[in-house]
Amino acid sequence: MQSLYPMKYKSINLTEKLGLVTEQWAPRVVAEMNDYQFKVVKLEGDFIWHSHKETDETFLVLEGDLRIDFRDGAVQIGAGELFVVPKGVEHKPYAGKEVKLMLIEPRGVLNTGDAGGERTAKNDVWI
Amino acid sequence: MQSLYPMKYKSINLTEKLGLVTEQWAPRVVAEMNDYQFKVVKLEGDFIWHSHKETDETFLVLEGDLRIDFRDGAVQIGAGELFVVPKGVEHKPYAGKEVKLMLIEPRGVLNTGDAGGERTAKNDVWI
Repeated sequence: MQSLYPMKYKSINLTEKLGLVTEQWAPRVVAEMNDYQFKVVKLEGDFIWHSHKETDETFLVLEGDLRIDFRDGAVQIGAGELFVVPKGVEHKPYAGKEVKLMLIEPRGVLNTGDAGGERTAKNDVWI
Repeated sequence: MQSLYPMKYKSINLTEKLGLVTEQWAPRVVAEMNDYQFKVVKLEGDFIWHSHKETDETFLVLEGDLRIDFRDGAVQIGAGELFVVPKGVEHKPYAGKEVKLMLIEPRGVLNTGDAGGERTAKNDVWI
Protein backbone atom coordinates (compact mmCIF):
# COMPACT_ATOMS: atom_id res chain seq x y z
CA MET A 1 0.00 0.00 0.00
CA GLN A 2 1.30 3.40 -0.86
CA SER A 3 2.25 5.45 2.19
CA LEU A 4 0.36 8.63 2.90
CA TYR A 5 3.74 10.14 3.62
CA PRO A 6 6.14 9.73 0.67
CA MET A 7 9.85 9.51 1.52
CA LYS A 8 10.41 12.98 0.15
CA TYR A 9 8.30 14.17 3.08
CA LYS A 10 10.35 12.51 5.79
CA SER A 11 11.72 14.50 8.71
CA ILE A 12 15.35 14.12 9.77
CA ASN A 13 15.88 12.97 13.34
CA LEU A 14 19.18 14.45 14.51
CA THR A 15 19.64 12.00 17.40
CA GLU A 16 19.12 9.07 15.04
CA LYS A 17 21.61 10.50 12.57
CA LEU A 18 24.18 11.09 15.32
CA GLY A 19 23.71 7.46 16.36
CA LEU A 20 25.09 6.46 12.96
CA VAL A 21 28.23 8.55 13.34
CA THR A 22 31.13 6.32 14.43
CA GLU A 23 33.99 8.79 14.16
CA GLN A 24 34.75 12.02 16.00
CA TRP A 25 35.64 15.25 14.13
CA ALA A 26 33.99 13.89 10.97
CA PRO A 27 31.02 16.07 9.93
CA ARG A 28 28.23 14.19 8.14
CA VAL A 29 25.68 15.98 5.96
CA VAL A 30 22.02 15.28 6.84
CA ALA A 31 20.20 17.92 4.75
CA GLU A 32 20.64 20.86 2.41
CA MET A 33 18.86 24.22 2.21
CA ASN A 34 19.69 26.11 -0.99
CA ASP A 35 23.51 26.04 -1.07
CA TYR A 36 23.84 25.44 2.68
CA GLN A 37 24.36 22.15 4.47
CA PHE A 38 23.30 20.80 7.85
CA LYS A 39 25.96 18.50 9.29
CA VAL A 40 25.99 16.45 12.47
CA VAL A 41 29.30 15.86 14.20
CA LYS A 42 30.76 14.47 17.42
CA LEU A 43 33.70 16.33 18.91
CA GLU A 44 35.96 15.54 21.85
CA GLY A 45 39.22 17.11 22.93
CA ASP A 46 41.05 19.89 21.18
CA PHE A 47 40.99 21.08 17.57
CA ILE A 48 43.29 23.42 15.66
CA TRP A 49 43.11 27.17 15.25
CA HIS A 50 41.46 28.06 11.95
CA SER A 51 39.08 30.50 10.30
CA HIS A 52 36.71 30.55 7.33
CA LYS A 53 37.49 33.61 5.23
CA GLU A 54 34.35 33.40 3.09
CA THR A 55 31.58 32.58 5.54
CA ASP A 56 30.07 32.60 9.00
CA GLU A 57 29.69 29.18 10.61
CA THR A 58 26.87 28.12 12.94
CA PHE A 59 27.18 25.68 15.84
CA LEU A 60 24.01 24.27 17.43
CA VAL A 61 24.84 22.00 20.38
CA LEU A 62 22.49 19.03 20.80
CA GLU A 63 24.14 17.15 23.68
CA GLY A 64 27.07 18.03 25.93
CA ASP A 65 29.07 21.23 26.19
CA LEU A 66 31.26 22.88 23.62
CA ARG A 67 33.76 25.65 24.20
CA ILE A 68 35.00 27.72 21.30
CA ASP A 69 38.18 29.67 21.99
CA PHE A 70 38.94 32.93 20.26
CA ARG A 71 42.15 34.93 20.36
CA ASP A 72 40.47 37.38 22.76
CA GLY A 73 37.95 35.26 24.64
CA ALA A 74 35.77 32.17 24.50
CA VAL A 75 32.16 31.05 24.36
CA GLN A 76 30.50 28.15 26.17
CA ILE A 77 27.70 26.51 24.20
CA GLY A 78 25.42 24.05 25.99
CA ALA A 79 22.66 21.78 24.68
CA GLY A 80 19.92 23.78 22.97
CA GLU A 81 22.26 26.70 22.39
CA LEU A 82 23.41 28.29 19.18
CA PHE A 83 26.46 30.33 18.26
CA VAL A 84 27.51 31.90 14.97
CA VAL A 85 31.26 32.28 14.44
CA PRO A 86 31.73 35.33 12.22
CA LYS A 87 33.64 34.87 8.99
CA GLY A 88 37.36 35.41 9.16
CA VAL A 89 37.51 35.06 12.95
CA GLU A 90 40.07 32.57 14.22
CA HIS A 91 38.55 29.96 16.50
CA LYS A 92 39.32 26.61 18.09
CA PRO A 93 36.59 24.25 19.30
CA TYR A 94 37.21 22.25 22.48
CA ALA A 95 35.17 19.66 24.35
CA GLY A 96 36.25 18.08 27.66
CA LYS A 97 33.78 15.25 27.05
CA GLU A 98 32.18 14.20 23.79
CA VAL A 99 29.74 16.80 22.50
CA LYS A 100 27.16 16.24 19.76
CA LEU A 101 26.21 19.13 17.58
CA MET A 102 24.91 20.37 14.26
CA LEU A 103 26.92 22.64 11.98
CA ILE A 104 25.25 24.90 9.45
CA GLU A 105 27.39 26.39 6.72
CA PRO A 106 27.61 26.72 2.94
CA ARG A 107 28.32 23.60 0.91
CA GLY A 108 32.06 23.17 0.40
CA VAL A 109 33.28 24.53 3.73
CA LEU A 110 36.11 22.45 5.21
CA ASN A 111 36.30 21.77 8.95
CA THR A 112 39.81 23.19 9.13
CA GLY A 113 38.95 26.25 7.06
CA ASP A 114 42.02 28.07 5.77
CA ALA A 115 44.38 26.12 8.02
CA GLY A 116 44.24 22.75 6.24
CA GLY A 117 46.44 19.92 7.51
CA GLU A 118 45.92 16.42 8.85
CA ARG A 119 42.77 17.23 10.84
CA THR A 120 40.93 18.11 7.61
CA ALA A 121 37.91 15.80 7.27
CA LYS A 122 36.55 14.49 3.98
CA ASN A 123 33.92 16.95 2.85
CA ASP A 124 30.34 16.42 1.68
CA VAL A 125 29.89 12.95 3.21
CA TRP A 126 26.19 12.21 3.80
CA ILE A 127 24.74 9.99 6.47
CA MET B 1 35.73 43.66 36.45
CA GLN B 2 35.94 42.85 32.81
CA SER B 3 34.37 39.51 31.94
CA LEU B 4 36.52 36.79 30.44
CA TYR B 5 33.67 36.24 28.01
CA PRO B 6 32.73 39.45 26.18
CA MET B 7 29.08 39.76 25.11
CA LYS B 8 30.05 39.18 21.50
CA TYR B 9 30.96 35.65 22.58
CA LYS B 10 27.60 34.79 24.13
CA SER B 11 25.68 31.71 23.06
CA ILE B 12 21.98 31.94 22.26
CA ASN B 13 19.73 29.75 24.36
CA LEU B 14 16.72 28.85 22.21
CA THR B 15 14.49 27.88 25.15
CA GLU B 16 15.21 31.21 26.84
CA LYS B 17 14.44 33.09 23.64
CA LEU B 18 11.18 31.19 23.15
CA GLY B 19 10.25 32.11 26.74
CA LEU B 20 10.25 35.75 25.65
CA VAL B 21 7.86 35.14 22.76
CA THR B 22 4.32 36.13 23.76
CA GLU B 23 2.56 35.79 20.43
CA GLN B 24 1.93 32.78 18.18
CA TRP B 25 2.75 32.85 14.43
CA ALA B 26 5.18 35.73 15.02
CA PRO B 27 8.75 34.69 14.09
CA ARG B 28 11.49 36.42 16.10
CA VAL B 29 15.07 36.64 14.87
CA VAL B 30 17.70 35.40 17.33
CA ALA B 31 20.82 35.27 15.13
CA GLU B 32 22.17 35.76 11.63
CA MET B 33 24.64 33.73 9.56
CA ASN B 34 25.75 35.57 6.40
CA ASP B 35 22.42 36.62 4.83
CA TYR B 36 20.40 33.95 6.63
CA GLN B 37 18.37 34.34 9.81
CA PHE B 38 17.54 32.00 12.68
CA LYS B 39 14.04 32.70 13.99
CA VAL B 40 12.15 31.16 16.91
CA VAL B 41 8.39 30.89 16.65
CA LYS B 42 5.41 29.35 18.44
CA LEU B 43 2.67 27.88 16.26
CA GLU B 44 -0.73 26.48 17.11
CA GLY B 45 -3.65 25.60 14.86
CA ASP B 46 -3.82 26.03 11.13
CA PHE B 47 -1.95 28.34 8.77
CA ILE B 48 -2.55 29.25 5.14
CA TRP B 49 -1.27 27.59 1.98
CA HIS B 50 1.77 29.40 0.66
CA SER B 51 5.15 28.90 -0.96
CA HIS B 52 8.48 30.69 -1.17
CA LYS B 53 9.46 31.03 -4.82
CA GLU B 54 13.04 32.08 -4.15
CA THR B 55 14.21 29.82 -1.37
CA ASP B 56 14.07 26.61 0.61
CA GLU B 57 12.87 26.98 4.21
CA THR B 58 14.09 24.93 7.17
CA PHE B 59 11.98 23.91 10.17
CA LEU B 60 13.70 22.55 13.29
CA VAL B 61 11.17 21.53 15.95
CA LEU B 62 12.31 22.14 19.53
CA GLU B 63 9.18 21.20 21.50
CA GLY B 64 5.90 19.62 20.43
CA ASP B 65 4.84 18.24 17.07
CA LEU B 66 4.43 20.02 13.78
CA ARG B 67 2.68 18.73 10.69
CA ILE B 68 3.34 20.33 7.34
CA ASP B 69 0.76 19.57 4.68
CA PHE B 70 1.65 19.46 1.01
CA ARG B 71 -0.70 19.14 -1.95
CA ASP B 72 0.34 15.49 -2.28
CA GLY B 73 1.23 14.43 1.25
CA ALA B 74 2.42 15.61 4.62
CA VAL B 75 5.35 15.40 7.02
CA GLN B 76 5.30 15.01 10.80
CA ILE B 77 8.18 16.77 12.55
CA GLY B 78 8.80 16.03 16.24
CA ALA B 79 11.20 17.59 18.74
CA GLY B 80 14.81 17.26 17.60
CA GLU B 81 13.74 16.79 13.99
CA LEU B 82 14.49 18.88 10.94
CA PHE B 83 12.73 19.32 7.62
CA VAL B 84 13.60 21.46 4.61
CA VAL B 85 10.65 22.63 2.51
CA PRO B 86 11.94 22.97 -1.07
CA LYS B 87 11.53 26.33 -2.75
CA GLY B 88 8.35 26.83 -4.70
CA VAL B 89 6.52 23.96 -3.00
CA GLU B 90 3.14 24.87 -1.54
CA HIS B 91 2.85 23.99 2.13
CA LYS B 92 0.67 24.62 5.15
CA PRO B 93 1.95 24.17 8.72
CA TYR B 94 -0.44 22.78 11.33
CA ALA B 95 -0.09 22.10 15.05
CA GLY B 96 -2.83 20.50 17.17
CA LYS B 97 -1.11 21.84 20.30
CA GLU B 98 1.41 24.64 20.55
CA VAL B 99 4.72 23.75 18.96
CA LYS B 100 7.99 25.62 19.44
CA LEU B 101 10.47 25.66 16.62
CA MET B 102 13.30 27.39 14.85
CA LEU B 103 13.08 28.57 11.25
CA ILE B 104 16.18 29.04 9.12
CA GLU B 105 15.84 31.05 5.93
CA PRO B 106 17.34 34.00 4.10
CA ARG B 107 16.80 37.47 5.56
CA GLY B 108 13.64 39.04 4.13
CA VAL B 109 11.50 35.91 3.79
CA LEU B 110 7.91 36.51 4.87
CA ASN B 111 5.97 33.85 6.81
CA THR B 112 3.18 33.84 4.23
CA GLY B 113 5.59 33.73 1.28
CA ASP B 114 3.91 34.61 -1.99
CA ALA B 115 0.40 34.37 -0.53
CA GLY B 116 0.43 37.53 1.59
CA GLY B 117 -2.72 38.52 3.46
CA GLU B 118 -3.70 39.13 7.06
CA ARG B 119 -1.58 36.29 8.51
CA THR B 120 1.60 38.01 7.31
CA ALA B 121 3.79 38.73 10.35
CA LYS B 122 6.03 41.76 10.71
CA ASN B 123 9.43 40.74 9.38
CA ASP B 124 12.92 41.08 10.87
CA VAL B 125 11.81 41.52 14.49
CA TRP B 126 14.59 40.51 16.90
CA ILE B 127 14.18 39.12 20.37
